[in-house]
Amino acid sequence: MSKQPVFIAGEWRESDATGTFQSGNPATKEPLPEVYPVSSWADCDAALDAATTAFEEMRSLSGSQIAEFLETFANEIESRADELVKWANLETALPVSPRLADVELPRTTGQLRQAAAAARSSNWTQPVIDSANNIRSCYGALGPVCVFGPNNFPFAFGSASGGDFAAAIAAGNPVIAKANSSHPGTTKVFAECASAAAEKTGMPSAIVQLIYRTSHDVGERLVSDPRIGATGYTGSRGAGLTLKKAADAAGKPIYLELSSVNPVVFLPAILEEKAEELATEFAGSCLMGTGQFCTNPGMVVLIESSAAETFVTSVAKQFSEAGVGTLLSGAVEKSLHQSHAILTEAGAEVCTGTGAGNGVGYCAANTLLRISGSQFLTNPEVMQTEAFGNSSLIVVTESVTEAAAVLARLEGNLTGCLYSAADGKDDEAYHALAPILRQKVGRLLNDKMPTGVAVSPAMNHGGPYPATGHPGFTAVGIPGSLLRFAMLQSYDNVRQDRLPEILRDDYSGQAQRLIDGVWT
Amino acid sequence: MSKQPVFIAGEWRESDATGTFQSGNPATKEPLPEVYPVSSWADCDAALDAATTAFEEMRSLSGSQIAEFLETFANEIESRADELVKWANLETALPVSPRLADVELPRTTGQLRQAAAAARSSNWTQPVIDSANNIRSCYGALGPVCVFGPNNFPFAFGSASGGDFAAAIAAGNPVIAKANSSHPGTTKVFAECASAAAEKTGMPSAIVQLIYRTSHDVGERLVSDPRIGATGYTGSRGAGLTLKKAADAAGKPIYLELSSVNPVVFLPAILEEKAEELATEFAGSCLMGTGQFCTNPGMVVLIESSAAETFVTSVAKQFSEAGVGTLLSGAVEKSLHQSHAILTEAGAEVCTGTGAGNGVGYCAANTLLRISGSQFLTNPEVMQTEAFGNSSLIVVTESVTEAAAVLARLEGNLTGCLYSAADGKDDEAYHALAPILRQKVGRLLNDKMPTGVAVSPAMNHGGPYPATGHPGFTAVGIPGSLLRFAMLQSYDNVRQDRLPEILRDDYSGQAQRLIDGVWT
Repeated sequence: MSKQPVFIAGEWRESDATGTFQSGNPATKEPLPEVYPVSSWADCDAALDAATTAFEEMRSLSGSQIAEFLETFANEIESRADELVKWANLETALPVSPRLADVELPRTTGQLRQAAAAARSSNWTQPVIDSANNIRSCYGALGPVCVFGPNNFPFAFGSASGGDFAAAIAAGNPVIAKANSSHPGTTKVFAECASAAAEKTGMPSAIVQLIYRTSHDVGERLVSDPRIGATGYTGSRGAGLTLKKAADAAGKPIYLELSSVNPVVFLPAILEEKAEELATEFAGSCLMGTGQFCTNPGMVVLIESSAAETFVTSVAKQFSEAGVGTLLSGAVEKSLHQSHAILTEAGAEVCTGTGAGNGVGYCAANTLLRISGSQFLTNPEVMQTEAFGNSSLIVVTESVTEAAAVLARLEGNLTGCLYSAADGKDDEAYHALAPILRQKVGRLLNDKMPTGVAVSPAMNHGGPYPATGHPGFTAVGIPGSLLRFAMLQSYDNVRQDRLPEILRDDYSGQAQRLIDGVWT
Repeated sequence: MSKQPVFIAGEWRESDATGTFQSGNPATKEPLPEVYPVSSWADCDAALDAATTAFEEMRSLSGSQIAEFLETFANEIESRADELVKWANLETALPVSPRLADVELPRTTGQLRQAAAAARSSNWTQPVIDSANNIRSCYGALGPVCVFGPNNFPFAFGSASGGDFAAAIAAGNPVIAKANSSHPGTTKVFAECASAAAEKTGMPSAIVQLIYRTSHDVGERLVSDPRIGATGYTGSRGAGLTLKKAADAAGKPIYLELSSVNPVVFLPAILEEKAEELATEFAGSCLMGTGQFCTNPGMVVLIESSAAETFVTSVAKQFSEAGVGTLLSGAVEKSLHQSHAILTEAGAEVCTGTGAGNGVGYCAANTLLRISGSQFLTNPEVMQTEAFGNSSLIVVTESVTEAAAVLARLEGNLTGCLYSAADGKDDEAYHALAPILRQKVGRLLNDKMPTGVAVSPAMNHGGPYPATGHPGFTAVGIPGSLLRFAMLQSYDNVRQDRLPEILRDDYSGQAQRLIDGVWT
């Protein structure tokens, strides 16, 4: 069977392949018919050369021209929405509706349009002018960006369509998309849409390129190549850390979203007040999308009480009674079982689950595990093993003091939540725990599950390592997410007509500028 | 002889030392009498514990309280200015006046006061409020910061007084200062001033701590410890990369200023116009401070012409006639000779210098080397060997095209300059070269030497690797430099009275906030 072509330098061309792979339908466990190439270094080298040329051309484009491309791309996506949804459903088993068609696709085009608005306004470049010294600065594009997308959001985090893609392009960089191997067909349609949009809006032909897979060696070489500006990666911790090591050694920025257990603390008084209600809220959040969200609540911290027991019993019951969703792939199923084995071997008690699921295709039983605070503290690293999927670990501590010790041993996470009573009865415990949790997470929540990630300028979808590779940046939220793919550029005594327009004295645009200490 | 104590947890205490060292007087090549400890891990461990506690306490301080500390510290420094200048002159041989007393000391206290103003205004935290989603974000303190200062600015980049120190404290983090081993006596006086200021303003006793030296192993452990928030390092590339590797593996941010040759391009028409004048300007900049600036112009790119030859001849003459300054240490002298050996072995022609200097103490002859563009292109990595000191390398290319090829092979640098004629005769060449240089440097200059680094909000004292470790951050310029020691913190549905004051609805301060897309 003939291999699918890669998209390099504006051409769908035969890959210089070192092997092939197929994606599968998680609902049937059957491979899909299309065969995709594993790219050699020659493919990457050609893509890097083309991206270098595209970047040179992009540097003379205005923000408005880039915005037009992003908006046209969003339109192209909408014109092929049915096809995209069909592909993604086939390759990921995520439900067509509402998930793919009504939630993730509109979110994706919405992100692209927000990124377009950011490119058009140029506010994200944060222009600063010091008239007395005649020094000016702003953020500027960095160079070709390589995007590795995850398996769990084929649209909104897709390598040729998602948040990293939108941010990199809006900041003025071409993208080399490395498709997630579990949904190459979906990603290919996005690359076709991008190519059509690039042609319609007069973009360089290599503004977007697509490869499907590489060996580890080739991937490491790609992210550390001198022609690369930066890399965005969302995926497994193991593969991410391998890329990080290579990029770090070459001094190339790499933004990673790796793993997160997203601790949720239910304080005693609110649990006393409505344990059952909270159990239902928690179970819904944890099982939604078969738990395959980066911000899935994978760890719960309680302080022992009868209400805490009511909560655990209720969650266990709901988990055992709820339907079992399909997992994204055999690899996800395997990894989930492995994580359960690690946790139970370390002493976690099974409240419900851990076995095979009675669902369709790849699946696992909805799983609730339980340990004590002292078990956690004896073995904190192992007890933070991420069990990606429909699973959570409850840590029952004996006191607020022990809960504080548990939080103090947490690794970095994307989110952390504290539920507390409205009448102030939990306030003392809140103030003991919140400052500890605050430093461990990118987003701190009150009385709310973490699974929703609004595309808001105040969002931080980031956090300390190993949630991400750097605690100063967010992957969601525009314009903040653009700063990952930019460099700070200062101009010292540079003549007016040689400055970027936004730094000139006669600038007539609408962007906010900090001129001699005053926002203007 | 008794060892000098370290300053840990607010106490001058005996070090748990694994060895000792002495600093030397570079002008006499004699060791100074004081004996300083090489700290074991036990010292670092104690400092990390104390810093953790100090950080917890600092999180309840307002920006104004931190500002008072920084201002009081600046006053303390001024009250002991004579002593500081005397120590720094002894340990570095930098001239008392104007350099230490009239330039670097005022710059240092000025930076501290600018950092105080940033802490007081809180504008650096970039508060964003999304009312519809009730999500809010700002940058916040990261945790204890370890600062490794360089040898060449004992005040302005000193580990207990300089830019990294001021930025880390202003952002709300305690500092563990690792003195540069060439000026421990100077650094000790700063720590005494800081301690006095901390006491007067009611700061946690471990807001500033001081150790003098560690083994490489202990240093690597320090920057990767879970209790560390981030590290700031300015110094040699070798030692910096060792620390970077350790910090990267632990996912701890580390901001490094490593090495930079700061290319200066003189275009043909301006050289034709005033080769002699430019030679004098260049020679002055290159030999100032015996060339020991991070932004010293260590590489010049010319396009061959008789004016270019006039320039080279004139610089060589001025170099050979100018006095020879004292270098900071025997290590700097040795390293400079080694770099000259590497460059000449690779084919660089000696216009003047490379031998022993006829100056006082550690020194080397003012050195001008020369290669062709094709020599550079044959061996670009070696030809970019930094020769830190009173030295520069001229690259004579045969055309603008070849000059472009040279610039395209440059590593990342702090600065890059282009000199061009005012009448437009160099414009075509400028527009061919500037875009290439722009992506390689943090600060692009026109018609100006790079050695001055204004403390301006528009300054970027940073640049792509290996100039620094990340192209998005600056080490000079307030408030930008604070962002290195901060994390992005989002608050989702958090109750009003639990928010940082700056994110509350009833905030009454003066800081600019982005509320629902509008700066307010």
